[in-house]
Amino acid sequence: MRRIRLIIQYDGTDYAGFQVQPDRPTVQRALEEALGRLLCEAVRVQGASRTDAGVHAAGQVVAFTTENPIPVERVVLALNALLPPDVAAVAADEVPADFHPQYSARRKQYVYRVLNRPLPSPFLGRHAWHVAPPLDVAAMQRAARPLVGEHDFAAFRAAGGAAKTTVRELFDLTVCTQDETIEFTLCGNGFLYMMVRNVVGTLVEVGLGRVPAERVAVVLASRSRSMAGPTAPPHGLTLVRIDY
Amino acid sequence: MRRIRLIIQYDGTDYAGFQVQPDRPTVQRALEEALGRLLCEAVRVQGASRTDAGVHAAGQVVAFTTENPIPVERVVLALNALLPPDVAAVAADEVPADFHPQYSARRKQYVYRVLNRPLPSPFLGRHAWHVAPPLDVAAMQRAARPLVGEHDFAAFRAAGGAAKTTVRELFDLTVCTQDETIEFTLCGNGFLYMMVRNVVGTLVEVGLGRVPAERVAVVLASRSRSMAGPTAPPHGLTLVRIDY
Repeated sequence: MRRIRLIIQYDGTDYAGFQVQPDRPTVQRALEEALGRLLCEAVRVQGASRTDAGVHAAGQVVAFTTENPIPVERVVLALNALLPPDVAAVAADEVPADFHPQYSARRKQYVYRVLNRPLPSPFLGRHAWHVAPPLDVAAMQRAARPLVGEHDFAAFRAAGGAAKTTVRELFDLTVCTQDETIEFTLCGNGFLYMMVRNVVGTLVEVGLGRVPAERVAVVLASRSRSMAGPTAPPHGLTLVRIDY
Repeated sequence: MRRIRLIIQYDGTDYAGFQVQPDRPTVQRALEEALGRLLCEAVRVQGASRTDAGVHAAGQVVAFTTENPIPVERVVLALNALLPPDVAAVAADEVPADFHPQYSARRKQYVYRVLNRPLPSPFLGRHAWHVAPPLDVAAMQRAARPLVGEHDFAAFRAAGGAAKTTVRELFDLTVCTQDETIEFTLCGNGFLYMMVRNVVGTLVEVGLGRVPAERVAVVLASRSRSMAGPTAPPHGLTLVRIDY
């Protein structure tokens, strides 16, 4: 038995998220179908992150176990020939039998993009949330600071999250502008259900001037979801990389 | 009666081209439906270019006639609120009653993108043709040179083109690399049916080393479609701008 790790990318627009669901297209199903054809056996993959419907990935990590002796350096090219065009494999390697993409992860990085200009864009808008009024980037940067570190992030967890503890460590949270796009980059040891989108939704409220920057530390301390801002839409979010 | 010109952008992936067709989603229909709702009257638009299924536009020009007194500076914002996310208006102005976006055009610019690397990309691949083997850019640049100027481009016209003459002037044809993307930029006074995609398909044959660069001048002179290379796929093509 061999255990193989893959780094994959996908445009999540047309998928009901990563995880298999009955009768709906998911990234996991697309992967398992392509792997099944490649390896001539039923394959089950585990993913590092169950990205939601519409969320993209530039560096999702998955792993699977196989009896097939295919050389690992052939997997990427062969798999890409079988995958739909909105999913691609970028790397493959062999890992120890106990490797689990989710539980073995030490650090995850997400980026959330906002297109901040009056006009929408059919090109950029597929991977960015269009917010027309000008956002106060300095205020959002100020509001983001108290979130960095180890905290109880219960205020930013959506209902439905099943994690045992709501304490996570956020290593870094930057807010950068590039042309008309604002990028929120979050690195942490793990994220609660919808945490990135709830953090961004709250920071955008600050950027719009609806909530003072100082308020975000109060929201965090409250541990109450009802104190935080709305959930930012999924299509602005990309899972960038996972370190082990 | 007022005549209004719009510059629009679209991601053509999910459309059966620009021009209205029965029972199929087209950009023209999406536009006419949104304009109909905005102006409370049936609106018919004329487009500068009938882009094919899957082709994108960053600067398509359309025009329509209306009785509605809506201030022209309000049209763009109001229209974007009614258009689907893969179509957007970027500018609007009032033009003389005899303005026709196709017949009044003096110069059109298209860009064709090729993603030239072993691995496909779910992000870049939506707007670029993925060609895995390394292309010889210098050979393609050499092959492109004799195409510039006024010529009979019959060899690069697909069957089904209805133009009276196959003579066109190509003002410029550049082949540039940017990271792993190769961009073919074509400016001309007009283009025959599928001409850009047939030119790019032929140049890529040169880039792959299947056809010598010197051959392209012979293909042009032959005026025979069977001499030219295959048609490049639609999703790499974007209509960039039109000058009047």
